[in-house]
Amino acid sequence: MAERSLIFPRAEYERRIAALQSRMAAAGQDALLLTTAADVFYVTGFLTRFWESPARPWYMVIPATGAPVAVIPAIGADLMGRCWIEDIRVWPAPDPRDDGVSLLAQTLSDLVPEGGAIAVPMGLETQLRAPLADFACVQRRIGDRKIVDGTDTLQRVREVKSDLEVAAIRESCAIAGRVFDRVPEFARAGVPLSQVFRDFQIALLQEGADWVSYVAGGAGPGGYGDVISPADDRPLQAGDVLMLDTGAVRNGYFCDFDRNYSVGPPDAETAKAQEALWQATEVAIKELRPGRRACDVHTVLADALTDHGTQPLGGRLGHGLGVTLTEWPSFTQLDETELVAGMVLTLEPGIEIAPGRCLVHEENILLTDHGAELLSPRAPRLLPELST
Amino acid sequence: MAERSLIFPRAEYERRIAALQSRMAAAGQDALLLTTAADVFYVTGFLTRFWESPARPWYMVIPATGAPVAVIPAIGADLMGRCWIEDIRVWPAPDPRDDGVSLLAQTLSDLVPEGGAIAVPMGLETQLRAPLADFACVQRRIGDRKIVDGTDTLQRVREVKSDLEVAAIRESCAIAGRVFDRVPEFARAGVPLSQVFRDFQIALLQEGADWVSYVAGGAGPGGYGDVISPADDRPLQAGDVLMLDTGAVRNGYFCDFDRNYSVGPPDAETAKAQEALWQATEVAIKELRPGRRACDVHTVLADALTDHGTQPLGGRLGHGLGVTLTEWPSFTQLDETELVAGMVLTLEPGIEIAPGRCLVHEENILLTDHGAELLSPRAPRLLPELST
Repeated sequence: MAERSLIFPRAEYERRIAALQSRMAAAGQDALLLTTAADVFYVTGFLTRFWESPARPWYMVIPATGAPVAVIPAIGADLMGRCWIEDIRVWPAPDPRDDGVSLLAQTLSDLVPEGGAIAVPMGLETQLRAPLADFACVQRRIGDRKIVDGTDTLQRVREVKSDLEVAAIRESCAIAGRVFDRVPEFARAGVPLSQVFRDFQIALLQEGADWVSYVAGGAGPGGYGDVISPADDRPLQAGDVLMLDTGAVRNGYFCDFDRNYSVGPPDAETAKAQEALWQATEVAIKELRPGRRACDVHTVLADALTDHGTQPLGGRLGHGLGVTLTEWPSFTQLDETELVAGMVLTLEPGIEIAPGRCLVHEENILLTDHGAELLSPRAPRLLPELST
Repeated sequence: MAERSLIFPRAEYERRIAALQSRMAAAGQDALLLTTAADVFYVTGFLTRFWESPARPWYMVIPATGAPVAVIPAIGADLMGRCWIEDIRVWPAPDPRDDGVSLLAQTLSDLVPEGGAIAVPMGLETQLRAPLADFACVQRRIGDRKIVDGTDTLQRVREVKSDLEVAAIRESCAIAGRVFDRVPEFARAGVPLSQVFRDFQIALLQEGADWVSYVAGGAGPGGYGDVISPADDRPLQAGDVLMLDTGAVRNGYFCDFDRNYSVGPPDAETAKAQEALWQATEVAIKELRPGRRACDVHTVLADALTDHGTQPLGGRLGHGLGVTLTEWPSFTQLDETELVAGMVLTLEPGIEIAPGRCLVHEENILLTDHGAELLSPRAPRLLPELST
């Protein structure tokens, strides 16, 4: 059991810590406290589905200088020890008297000088994955050390993907791409949507996904009603548009893109919507550059859809992607985040054809100094047809 | 799109709200604020994998009397509207200026009198699934209303399963049971553990799981090292014990049990450990009664293992189960939660055979007034053999 359990070389994680510490120094932060599966995986390589159990909190402390410290349940010591972390402090969780509170407070007090600042991600798209009462208790036990907002510190680092990360996302995208090509094997008129969802997940595993954290989709005549509902048992029928969307995971990295299919030939309105979505994505791929803002991408996509005589869906039209299914920024009118080279993003234009009837398209791209590079295989321009 | 999307009849959710409101009244709480996928599903029936995206917070407010109020991103309005919730307040999330904060603060101010108490689950096994800074902002905007701990209010209700819930968990257990019987079809000497994990997930989907939120396991000579690591590519070999553990989901309800297999015949030490685990579970099944405490179950299991000349693993030896993979209480020496009829629990004795070499057994049971009733098909007493 002594072998390493890391997906990337140790140097990759050391680079991440150095980048975080550089941001921390600039912001006057003396430690960064992380609690979520994605953040812990990002800094340690600690990959497990055990996070599905809400029973225990897990803490990583990145000091201003030096190596990160894990403050975790004893059950994770072995796996964390096979990552690159050497300072691992454990308690026998779950402990109803003190579930790591004293150990975390002591660790923070050891690593952060009195009056120092402990950064915790607390802004948009963040969560504290620990009991609120425990966090309040830690705050009371760390003297005059302050808790400050670490969102920017974390997000400005995580959002720029290394070559290793891009390769991992590309692999997840390739797995999903092979499966989208196989959809006509198991989806046709008469097959209930719930069965299509099951077969889609099976195919993702067959093509190499480690697990399938996200599947969404919809089916309906000339478009679907919403894109977050679980599958019902209604059989596909001629004239339906079927959409499947997945966040399949390989080595801890997600893809997040979808494909649409027409059961039999699409009607003119559906074909027009598909053409508009495909062309809007083309425009965005051509125009994306570092230095543009997230809201600019929204404008590019929405304008292209309008130019094609279609009505853009409300809500965001794309977002970041990586160690979670979705990451910041959001392609909305309000998000002024500046795009930088190394971001992995989804372009997700959507059209409202009629109330309760929409079509959504999605691709995954890497932003480079020269523009967008596709990570997902480009969707076919014409809707693939499923047999009736 | 007008059809209902509920798994259970509306009366089931109304019963849950009434039970929560009764607890709230007894505790002097004027509202209960819920934020997690499981808690929102529990009170509304709102079931979606969209929670995989950390981008947006979701809020449910249960007032002291009357119907619950959803304060959610606009993208969820359609699906929530097809549940039984009528008062649905939405905002266009994610909004970097105000991501539902004003709407939630206003809703709490509408529903809770000045000076009133708003309960939020903040104790063991809880999380606030919303940005910490947003929560702090809401607190500043609700005048002299107080935030109090709602853990007990929520957990004492959620932990007692209705007949409908028990039937749902039984169905998930049956799915996994059928798959465990099929493991010899795809696991044998020479097959990499990573492939076994994939085929195991495929079989769970084939047998009716909607999705597979959790798979764990391990394999090694005469036992495995830990039970939370992802699968590696090492091929199974004669003398290995293979363990597979799953939280497969059907209709939003989990199972959580495992099975062990021997690649070829087990050695005497492994067979002895299997016998001890099986017998310890028998003892616990016979002795479990409402009124005993969680720590008593730990004692029963640990004593039975010791009586069989084996060394119990540290950590908990079982836990609750339901709309999450694991729920309170925990079978540890420290958890004094009183067991009550209607709890669904796992019995999870584990043995340390040698350092880095363990065997873990798990069953799912319903606690009734008369004792334990198995929900998982009982594991075979002797280790099933896989071909070499």
